[in-house]
Amino acid sequence: MADKINFERLTAVAARQAIDAGTLTAGRLLEACLERIDAREDDVRAWTFLDRAGARKQAAQLDAGPSRGLLHGIPLGVKDIIDTHDMPSRYGSPIYQHHHPQWDGASVALSRAAGGVVLGKTVTTEFANRHAGPTRNPLDLEHTPGGSSSGSAAAVADFHVPLALGTQTGGSVIRPASYCGVYGYKPSFQLIGNAGVRTNTEALDTVGLMARSVDDLALFKAALTETPYIAIDTPPLSSLSIALCRTPYWDRAADESRRALEQTAELLASAGATVTELVLPGEFAGLEEAHRQICAFEILRNYADELRRFRELVSDDFITQRVVLGEQTTLEMFREAIMLGERCRSWLDRWFAERRVDALLTPSAQGEAPRGIAFTGNVVFNFLWTFLYTPAITLPHFTGPLGLPVGVQLVGRKYTDQHLLNVASSVAGLWS
Amino acid sequence: MADKINFERLTAVAARQAIDAGTLTAGRLLEACLERIDAREDDVRAWTFLDRAGARKQAAQLDAGPSRGLLHGIPLGVKDIIDTHDMPSRYGSPIYQHHHPQWDGASVALSRAAGGVVLGKTVTTEFANRHAGPTRNPLDLEHTPGGSSSGSAAAVADFHVPLALGTQTGGSVIRPASYCGVYGYKPSFQLIGNAGVRTNTEALDTVGLMARSVDDLALFKAALTETPYIAIDTPPLSSLSIALCRTPYWDRAADESRRALEQTAELLASAGATVTELVLPGEFAGLEEAHRQICAFEILRNYADELRRFRELVSDDFITQRVVLGEQTTLEMFREAIMLGERCRSWLDRWFAERRVDALLTPSAQGEAPRGIAFTGNVVFNFLWTFLYTPAITLPHFTGPLGLPVGVQLVGRKYTDQHLLNVASSVAGLWS
Repeated sequence: MADKINFERLTAVAARQAIDAGTLTAGRLLEACLERIDAREDDVRAWTFLDRAGARKQAAQLDAGPSRGLLHGIPLGVKDIIDTHDMPSRYGSPIYQHHHPQWDGASVALSRAAGGVVLGKTVTTEFANRHAGPTRNPLDLEHTPGGSSSGSAAAVADFHVPLALGTQTGGSVIRPASYCGVYGYKPSFQLIGNAGVRTNTEALDTVGLMARSVDDLALFKAALTETPYIAIDTPPLSSLSIALCRTPYWDRAADESRRALEQTAELLASAGATVTELVLPGEFAGLEEAHRQICAFEILRNYADELRRFRELVSDDFITQRVVLGEQTTLEMFREAIMLGERCRSWLDRWFAERRVDALLTPSAQGEAPRGIAFTGNVVFNFLWTFLYTPAITLPHFTGPLGLPVGVQLVGRKYTDQHLLNVASSVAGLWS
Repeated sequence: MADKINFERLTAVAARQAIDAGTLTAGRLLEACLERIDAREDDVRAWTFLDRAGARKQAAQLDAGPSRGLLHGIPLGVKDIIDTHDMPSRYGSPIYQHHHPQWDGASVALSRAAGGVVLGKTVTTEFANRHAGPTRNPLDLEHTPGGSSSGSAAAVADFHVPLALGTQTGGSVIRPASYCGVYGYKPSFQLIGNAGVRTNTEALDTVGLMARSVDDLALFKAALTETPYIAIDTPPLSSLSIALCRTPYWDRAADESRRALEQTAELLASAGATVTELVLPGEFAGLEEAHRQICAFEILRNYADELRRFRELVSDDFITQRVVLGEQTTLEMFREAIMLGERCRSWLDRWFAERRVDALLTPSAQGEAPRGIAFTGNVVFNFLWTFLYTPAITLPHFTGPLGLPVGVQLVGRKYTDQHLLNVASSVAGLWS
């Protein structure tokens, strides 16, 4: 007899409660996820590797023992730019087709230590840059899921797993989460250990999370930082101070993103929140070029080995968008770009401290996911917050003209991630 | 007939000139280095792996072709915390005894791209932390070479290679260079790509260099940053503005370090340099504890895999000095520590800009290398400059009561590395 309950649709927090209550097992949850994957993966193509046997074995062990931690029995996906000791780690590149690292990346090891069941590796663009993988947007297979954490966003959106790991150097967590209609969280810089992540840049790379609720993000964050789990404490909407931030790039936002933002601001104001506006100082407009220069300068050097020994296996996209620009970027330009980031971070941090604003409200992406899967979308509404080290969360409650998801992004003060999660929970309540 | 010229004693710049002039070949230089290693390695134990055959093959290829770049034909050592695609990478840990990564770290690949001959891997303490390897100080085998870049300092000091790569999270380049009497250079944060370096911390890890002259450091830096080589431009001593910085930890400096510093200051003043003093604000005293907290917090998490799967193979030193402290360090403490660093960096950068000081003069280490090889020395005069992102160079021109080397350290304004190299060359001229 078929199940009446679609366990694969549970959030991680709900699944954990069911497992704790004895109404669900890790094994049963896993099988529900695997059935969903079997039904959908040919279309969605979210995974580069699935370890069914390993996951089943781990689930059985978890079911046989006491609770192992915050993620006990929760299946999750790992972006294939993060190493796993028992699965291939291909980084979206044919150079690493047969690459089996000896270790788990820090975020993988901490997920496992908390009882998480690593089900497999999810598609990344080549080296978490621009050259797309095969993943399609589960809400419309003709559209990109976004990138570079393409498979993680698609897998969570399509109910393959409740949680997945991503990384963001520009917009690689927030944008695909927005395109696929899930919750994405790019933490403050240096919150989650990056050991075992293939390095793009020291200056920007950030491990991030995908889930289907804000509570799940908080749970996952606690496991990944090996810190006590603090359940979401939702502040009343009327207590919030939110600043609309159109950014210097507002003219590049599609109508659906502008409307989503403005409607959210109206809803917040109606609910009694204080809604103001932040116009970033003129200097911030330079961050787009500065971000591109830092990526190009660092990536050219951090891939020196691949470019020296396997250049013919590197994509044209990588060469034209990273290597060529990297060769044109001098050390002085790189340093100026780093220092511009430092000044803008300092300005924004003082602004948050003085204005006592809880979060900025800003677009998650230009608009809906573009048609086609070769182009994973523009980074224009994401790189700022990576560069500024601020925590960012995308909430998935709007749709665009094609019926595809449109997120709105909340950005908090640097290093106040838990507060931003609380605020995000409160704002998400507008639509519940 | 025996050589009259000890080629292994040449600096990299001198060797490059001889190779360019046709009076030396890469093969000949390599054999001189290998002979020196054969004579000394049983005592010094600087290497975990030597690739004689590979190096000979590479040298022969270089000798058969045109100049390949800045390091054409120069043998070098790679600290065994940095990956190499053709040699084991053991990180000073039995966990990785049979570890063969598929790639070259960025610094290794860039050395090779510039024609450098990677001769082998040099001893690191366990995971570039405190648990010492077998290396001895070549100037007195009963003493530590310092750490964690133990083998790189010893190999350069003992004329095994003219250049070696190290890394510094606390004092792992400057201190061993000081103890072994070579030039060590810890660049500004994020100058040299860290891809392929086993991550300790995102906040602090810095790839650094060892050599036997300031000119060699400049040459090596250009190769490792893939930027044009700018030969040292030595400013006149009389034009320099140098500030003596005793740091909040002066009472922990041994007499020999104090004397080295004060004598250098006197020599500089006699030569017409402006010598002032910087007393760091009180807040800086907190950086010692903050540095320790950042290391402990990040290392606990970045080694989550090793601690989960191979805890019995991790040293007691690592457990007591990193893991236990890491477990006691909350996220709030970590964030406070990061923010203290940001404030102090900002203060020091403004100070440099306002005072137009060329460099700080400060101890390289407490004093001579301690006796015994189990303890690699105290980090107290090093962590500040790692944490503050400033470039630092140790110059080896003093000896202590036991006749062992005592360095003096020059520290420059963040991101002005080439200027600091120029200043270091000028100061080194005091003793030439």
